[in-house]
Amino acid sequence: MKPADLREILDAVARGSLGVDAAYDEVRARVHDQAFEDLGFARIDHQRELRQGFPEVVFGPGKTPGQVAEIAARIVARDQALLVTRVSREVFQAVRERVPDAQYAADARAIVRRPTGAPPLVGQILVAAAGTSDLPVAEEAAVSAELMGNAVDRLYDVGVAGLHRLLSAHARLAAARVAIVVAGMEGALPSVLGGLVGCPVIAVPTSVGYGASFGGLAALLAMLNSCAAGVAVVNIDNGFGAAAIASRINQLAGV
Amino acid sequence: MKPADLREILDAVARGSLGVDAAYDEVRARVHDQAFEDLGFARIDHQRELRQGFPEVVFGPGKTPGQVAEIAARIVARDQALLVTRVSREVFQAVRERVPDAQYAADARAIVRRPTGAPPLVGQILVAAAGTSDLPVAEEAAVSAELMGNAVDRLYDVGVAGLHRLLSAHARLAAARVAIVVAGMEGALPSVLGGLVGCPVIAVPTSVGYGASFGGLAALLAMLNSCAAGVAVVNIDNGFGAAAIASRINQLAGV
Amino acid sequence: MKPADLREILDAVARGSLGVDAAYDEVRARVHDQAFEDLGFARIDHQRELRQGFPEVVFGPGKTPGQVAEIAARIVARDQALLVTRVSREVFQAVRERVPDAQYAADARAIVRRPTGAPPLVGQILVAAAGTSDLPVAEEAAVSAELMGNAVDRLYDVGVAGLHRLLSAHARLAAARVAIVVAGMEGALPSVLGGLVGCPVIAVPTSVGYGASFGGLAALLAMLNSCAAGVAVVNIDNGFGAAAIASRINQLAGV
Amino acid sequence: MKPADLREILDAVARGSLGVDAAYDEVRARVHDQAFEDLGFARIDHQRELRQGFPEVVFGPGKTPGQVAEIAARIVARDQALLVTRVSREVFQAVRERVPDAQYAADARAIVRRPTGAPPLVGQILVAAAGTSDLPVAEEAAVSAELMGNAVDRLYDVGVAGLHRLLSAHARLAAARVAIVVAGMEGALPSVLGGLVGCPVIAVPTSVGYGASFGGLAALLAMLNSCAAGVAVVNIDNGFGAAAIASRINQLAGV
Amino acid sequence: MKPADLREILDAVARGSLGVDAAYDEVRARVHDQAFEDLGFARIDHQRELRQGFPEVVFGPGKTPGQVAEIAARIVARDQALLVTRVSREVFQAVRERVPDAQYAADARAIVRRPTGAPPLVGQILVAAAGTSDLPVAEEAAVSAELMGNAVDRLYDVGVAGLHRLLSAHARLAAARVAIVVAGMEGALPSVLGGLVGCPVIAVPTSVGYGASFGGLAALLAMLNSCAAGVAVVNIDNGFGAAAIASRINQLAGV
Amino acid sequence: MKPADLREILDAVARGSLGVDAAYDEVRARVHDQAFEDLGFARIDHQRELRQGFPEVVFGPGKTPGQVAEIAARIVARDQALLVTRVSREVFQAVRERVPDAQYAADARAIVRRPTGAPPLVGQILVAAAGTSDLPVAEEAAVSAELMGNAVDRLYDVGVAGLHRLLSAHARLAAARVAIVVAGMEGALPSVLGGLVGCPVIAVPTSVGYGASFGGLAALLAMLNSCAAGVAVVNIDNGFGAAAIASRINQLAGV
Amino acid sequence: MKPADLREILDAVARGSLGVDAAYDEVRARVHDQAFEDLGFARIDHQRELRQGFPEVVFGPGKTPGQVAEIAARIVARDQALLVTRVSREVFQAVRERVPDAQYAADARAIVRRPTGAPPLVGQILVAAAGTSDLPVAEEAAVSAELMGNAVDRLYDVGVAGLHRLLSAHARLAAARVAIVVAGMEGALPSVLGGLVGCPVIAVPTSVGYGASFGGLAALLAMLNSCAAGVAVVNIDNGFGAAAIASRINQLAGV
Amino acid sequence: MKPADLREILDAVARGSLGVDAAYDEVRARVHDQAFEDLGFARIDHQRELRQGFPEVVFGPGKTPGQVAEIAARIVARDQALLVTRVSREVFQAVRERVPDAQYAADARAIVRRPTGAPPLVGQILVAAAGTSDLPVAEEAAVSAELMGNAVDRLYDVGVAGLHRLLSAHARLAAARVAIVVAGMEGALPSVLGGLVGCPVIAVPTSVGYGASFGGLAALLAMLNSCAAGVAVVNIDNGFGAAAIASRINQLAGV
Repeated sequence: MKPADLREILDAVARGSLGVDAAYDEVRARVHDQAFEDLGFARIDHQRELRQGFPEVVFGPGKTPGQVAEIAARIVARDQALLVTRVSREVFQAVRERVPDAQYAADARAIVRRPTGAPPLVGQILVAAAGTSDLPVAEEAAVSAELMGNAVDRLYDVGVAGLHRLLSAHARLAAARVAIVVAGMEGALPSVLGGLVGCPVIAVPTSVGYGASFGGLAALLAMLNSCAAGVAVVNIDNGFGAAAIASRINQLAGV
Repeated sequence: MKPADLREILDAVARGSLGVDAAYDEVRARVHDQAFEDLGFARIDHQRELRQGFPEVVFGPGKTPGQVAEIAARIVARDQALLVTRVSREVFQAVRERVPDAQYAADARAIVRRPTGAPPLVGQILVAAAGTSDLPVAEEAAVSAELMGNAVDRLYDVGVAGLHRLLSAHARLAAARVAIVVAGMEGALPSVLGGLVGCPVIAVPTSVGYGASFGGLAALLAMLNSCAAGVAVVNIDNGFGAAAIASRINQLAGV
Repeated sequence: MKPADLREILDAVARGSLGVDAAYDEVRARVHDQAFEDLGFARIDHQRELRQGFPEVVFGPGKTPGQVAEIAARIVARDQALLVTRVSREVFQAVRERVPDAQYAADARAIVRRPTGAPPLVGQILVAAAGTSDLPVAEEAAVSAELMGNAVDRLYDVGVAGLHRLLSAHARLAAARVAIVVAGMEGALPSVLGGLVGCPVIAVPTSVGYGASFGGLAALLAMLNSCAAGVAVVNIDNGFGAAAIASRINQLAGV
Repeated sequence: MKPADLREILDAVARGSLGVDAAYDEVRARVHDQAFEDLGFARIDHQRELRQGFPEVVFGPGKTPGQVAEIAARIVARDQALLVTRVSREVFQAVRERVPDAQYAADARAIVRRPTGAPPLVGQILVAAAGTSDLPVAEEAAVSAELMGNAVDRLYDVGVAGLHRLLSAHARLAAARVAIVVAGMEGALPSVLGGLVGCPVIAVPTSVGYGASFGGLAALLAMLNSCAAGVAVVNIDNGFGAAAIASRINQLAGV
Repeated sequence: MKPADLREILDAVARGSLGVDAAYDEVRARVHDQAFEDLGFARIDHQRELRQGFPEVVFGPGKTPGQVAEIAARIVARDQALLVTRVSREVFQAVRERVPDAQYAADARAIVRRPTGAPPLVGQILVAAAGTSDLPVAEEAAVSAELMGNAVDRLYDVGVAGLHRLLSAHARLAAARVAIVVAGMEGALPSVLGGLVGCPVIAVPTSVGYGASFGGLAALLAMLNSCAAGVAVVNIDNGFGAAAIASRINQLAGV
Repeated sequence: MKPADLREILDAVARGSLGVDAAYDEVRARVHDQAFEDLGFARIDHQRELRQGFPEVVFGPGKTPGQVAEIAARIVARDQALLVTRVSREVFQAVRERVPDAQYAADARAIVRRPTGAPPLVGQILVAAAGTSDLPVAEEAAVSAELMGNAVDRLYDVGVAGLHRLLSAHARLAAARVAIVVAGMEGALPSVLGGLVGCPVIAVPTSVGYGASFGGLAALLAMLNSCAAGVAVVNIDNGFGAAAIASRINQLAGV
Repeated sequence: MKPADLREILDAVARGSLGVDAAYDEVRARVHDQAFEDLGFARIDHQRELRQGFPEVVFGPGKTPGQVAEIAARIVARDQALLVTRVSREVFQAVRERVPDAQYAADARAIVRRPTGAPPLVGQILVAAAGTSDLPVAEEAAVSAELMGNAVDRLYDVGVAGLHRLLSAHARLAAARVAIVVAGMEGALPSVLGGLVGCPVIAVPTSVGYGASFGGLAALLAMLNSCAAGVAVVNIDNGFGAAAIASRINQLAGV
Repeated sequence: MKPADLREILDAVARGSLGVDAAYDEVRARVHDQAFEDLGFARIDHQRELRQGFPEVVFGPGKTPGQVAEIAARIVARDQALLVTRVSREVFQAVRERVPDAQYAADARAIVRRPTGAPPLVGQILVAAAGTSDLPVAEEAAVSAELMGNAVDRLYDVGVAGLHRLLSAHARLAAARVAIVVAGMEGALPSVLGGLVGCPVIAVPTSVGYGASFGGLAALLAMLNSCAAGVAVVNIDNGFGAAAIASRINQLAGV
């Protein structure tokens, strides 16, 4: 509830056009009651789009197919964008019964549905991935970013052990407003790519690797210690998280 | 070296206005030779401003006062912005002998000098800090961001244990294009603040804390696992790193 | 065995009403022999209710269905409260054959049976959970607390990324004598909720999360480093442990 | 600001005894403006006593003596209880110049001052410590608890390698409403003591130990994994934190 | 090869009863060639019994049933004691085809066969376990110790949360020449038991526990930091390792 | 692209025998375009053999059988050596359909195919393994090294607990130009073997072990801390990585 | 208090030679009151020698010189053996004022005093150390073991990188009843030495090393994972702890 | 002792030119007695040069200046190469009194002395360092390699954030027989450099960095997970260790 709204209610009370009890209820209701929808097992935050530019996203793991379908139906009922991450095709079946026009992005393991009348995609987010095994995470980032209204350029398998693969894409690097850089193993790609571009870089460590990669810890630490300026890091395998901040950055620059 | 430059040299060779040997040397020189200055103990990357929008920054620890002063003098000789981080006042004395108009930002433990004719500060970067003990890191971020040409709003001691201190600053949160959020201990501030704003959030864990904070590890992990969308993280205590990416984001949005 | 008991036996010996051998056996027996029941694979501590207010609880993992059923039968034979944690429905089938009126709390993965003539529930324990995925742990806490004789108020999906969901429940927060706060990922909820209430807060980190949550380590460290006063922490996913201390606190305050 | 307050203001507006602008300002002011005192480097949360039963406590490390003294003076100006933790005698000298009746608890490394007219100490908090080296942490807990209005019983050097030292204090264990148990090294005391009592146990791991104690990690993990019911844990060396929750528990039980 | 052997060969050479070439071959052979049996995938160390009092033990994991059976057959062919640890009943089937009188100790997941004419069991090794879930490890220790010729006393489910269960067994504690103490979770039993006895204590942490037990790390660290004197530790879940050193200690004391 | 190539093109332009546009395209093409083959999901680095002496190796995990087969076919189409690591026999079936003369090295879990006309094997690489369970890793190293053109001597089950097994192979140790030493558990073999030889030692920790081996961490740390000179370490279980550097070393010494 | 004592008191009561009150006091006193001496900051466990064969040892760190001197005086007053570990010569000065015949073992950083009439040293404990830097820990073990009544053989600088230094001492290895093996860095010595002897081996990791030794963690993990049978481990740098268990083992074997 | 030596002695015995007792003593002496020099606190391994190509190196930390000087004098007495690592100038003063022609390499913190008549330097070892702060480690490697008889090319401050600094040195990369690559922070340089060369790469992580570099752990893990083939790793900051293996590799290739 914004100051202007409070002032308007107070004016109405002063004018006598609104009773005290009604005003009291109105203030309470505006602030709290319409802010979320309580399903018992979940409280869907319907104010999030207003507050942050994108509706609540459904993190799939730990929820039953039925729970996911129910939440999805509520979101779509308001014609908001739907994004469910890290779900199998089986969960998708359950969602499709409630949301017939939902789609399954298999590489990204995500369920998506764009709202009607969504504006055209803008700007340019580069999604670069070091190796073929990093694709599920890169695709989660790319699909999420597209659903959030961003044009995405995918540049895959450009790991630092064969630098020419990356250097040959210099024009595409230069065209990016913001770059999402996905890598496992030693996680060196954000440092190298970050040294070549002038745009913000969002680094995504992946759990790809073995032995002393310790489930992505090696890549995570490397990225946090990047000697290149302009790099920030999200959680291991968190393609969606990278897309969320990259989208905000890209949208900041307008069309 | 860009394709256009190569084509121009090739045209000159074809026209006969440039000999093969000269052209060969020119190509080599453009690509490599003028790219850095070799001091023996350091190779100053003078192309970095061209490539990334800000010149090389000097990381103080592990360098002698003499080395820092020498590097600083070379950077100032080209009238580039000078930023030396994590140095004591003693190092500053050495630098000031070579760069008389350098200044020491004591709270941030940094040496700064703006180049002549620097453009006015633009946009708005919010630097929020959870506690008083986080100030050195927050100031490193703020001072760095200002030197990079950004207007900065400082909002300190707004930790989550007393939420009203943060909520009372709602207008300042709303005015930020990008927020740098600095916190030690449990590192919860980026999650809470990130849930209130729609702009990108750069989280900086600090080593403030004791016991199971393990030198900032607790805050780092918390921030990487933030349930708020739009948050990315830099290294522990890395105020400069946060400023570097925040500046790129803020500059992206223009004046 | 209390001093008074020893004195009484000694008096009897002095009076000649108790022989030395009998007294010797009595003293030994009182101290040790009736304190537990030895099943070979387990020693059930029947003194625990007397000593600590609640009988021994059966931790399910690593025990066969038969072992669990045998232990359960012995506990019920004394009409003590029965609580078996972290068991599948299959284990419940084995228990029900020996304890027909046992019940299975599916959300909590627990087997429960209240003793006959149990007193009415008292006080108010708030069980708050940050997300839907934290429900199994929250339910283990809630079900355990109820079995221990406490009235429980469940407040789920109130994570810090949408603060208004928590703030709207202010009256329920204020009504709690003690709060159990369950959260995974960055584990920030205890800090925020702990800053809003004046009652003791028992924080329960969960293993919900991925990547750098490292199986709940991130939430655990965050909670241990909470900047809010009045917060203590139990093991990851340990809903029962939280209930045990919360119950002792709630019972302390009487009816 | 509570609902009753809002209703009262609205009534005044409806009666015409309060103008809209004044009412608007009043509402804003009540909610935010008087809630803290902004010193630039710190925002003192003066509402905390009202909200949580004890005023803001000053964590000493990372603050200058001048900053601590300034904050202390502001707190004492409102005649609130003053507690500054983890400070040297040198900091105390600075504080005493501003707060002449402050006292230095050397064993606990804390500065304390009771407000005038503080009520008599109530209840009984047991502070048990495993070894002599754990005393600074135990004393921080004891001194903090006393300042918060609790009667404290100190039981030191009762580590589990000589069980009879603990068992001989059985009456004192039984008299406690809540026990704070401080131990380093293997951190076994809370498990053993927790098995003997029926009251809540707050375990405090200390950094006492060497080698594979890893700065208190061994004791912390042991306490989190305690097989005794009714135990919760605070941060390593966090005597104050243990006192804060123990005080809330003790106060819950009344006089 | 011992000095006496070398001297004997040299004498024979000097006497002319042994040629230089033969002597050379003899020396080489004695030192190296008969020391082990090379199966290609394994080199069975047949000297081990001579050198260390017990033949090579077969660690099951990572070996095929066929490999285990082959190695077992070679060991039994020399009528040495056979011990295979951490194998399923399926592996046992393969072994029994080659070694018909081998036996499977199901609780310990071990295959055993005593050599013919093995001497009677001596001394007394106490194997104490904190909880029912620790039994597989405790049994691996007990079965191994028995095969090595030691009398074993099993004392299970005597965890520290119910001290009287342990204290009631004081006579059995006093009878032990050496104690193997097995515990998971907080691993406090060796400290408590170690404070009650005067014999050497071998502590075995187990992976029993959850959350912050981190696969037995909590118990391991606790045991390494034990404040009780006379305690040493083996690897997590390493029942066999505990038996090996306990056996050497027990045998040292003779019959 | 090498300087000589650039000069030749420039000469042709100067001579008029090559047009500017054609020269421009040629330069670009040489540098970037023929360097790799883009399959969408992968960019095969065909320059790698030229640059580093061995073609790109296919890391199996995380790739579908179809993807592996496709990449394998492309590599074989150029008659380069084919090596696919860490794949099951099922993946091999898919590859054999595209590459009929590929072979499956079951012990090493690798697919191999030598190019036609490969030169004879040279030098001598010793592959030593501490235990039978380390064989899969040792075989991955041995098979890889052979495919790279090196003669390999396998010395297995020579762990330090039975030193004579290693010492008896002294002649084979002395014959090695470089030694690959594979060990799990405490990882002591490289230190002992490294103290006996004068050649470079590449240590490979394996994940063989349990409890506090933490997936090979114990062996890894031990090898990194080796007190023997001349030892360097590769990732846990990384047999291929050891072969790659050992091959370069062996080839350095010529035939 | 043993059963026989209780029976004797009961007999006296039955005979009328002991009153009930006196008996009651006697029982209580025997069990608890004379068991320790309460100095306020410490409870000296005077029963420990009776219970465990050696009096309480004073761990120096974290205690003031005055506290150490006071405890030392109390121990010597009963003519028990005095051992204070990890103290500087300054602490020794304070102790010597109270205990004139105390001695300072500088290499071990320990204060020692043998009780009058101590029996001659028995058995043979071997203390082996890998490198010169491990001497302080090895000496703490050796000095402690001697004070406990054991003959000690010191064998230093026999690290595995030069095996012959160890092998040349074979006779001394064979003479040991129990071996304490001290090593830092990769901690391989217990595995190698453990493979050569038939006696129990107590391994002591030291914090000697750098980089990835992580303060002795590498050696600790290596020793816990030793492939040699008959090895158990104490805490990092814990020379005293090794002596305590080694002494119990050595004493077990008699003179 | 080699087989040929043994045969020669046996021949002499057979010929009667050597008595049995003398032969016996000779064999024993050759094998063990002359292999090292026992200083009490150290056993200098004089056979190491014969066995491994370079004499024992003195690791400075934890040794007194007097001990270092004594060991140095013994090594120089045999005119072997002297290398003492990680020592201050103060230690050097002590050494120079015993070894007047020793020299102090300040950047490397090492004491060196070449033996008389040392052969000319051969081959080419490249020592590359990412940043100026890595120089002490790089210099330790370079100085050590030179003392071992290798020609060294130093290439410093070529971190990946400014790739052109590295690419411009392509000819020097190509000239190396083996490369030592030193880097802190994210440790990406070995991956990038390793992708450009065909020679073996020895990676040295340094402790340069802060926050989540955790004392070099980040760089270490990155290097172990390098996606470039042909890379092996030594301990953090272990410049000497890198030189030792690089020297063996370089010497393998002859002059």
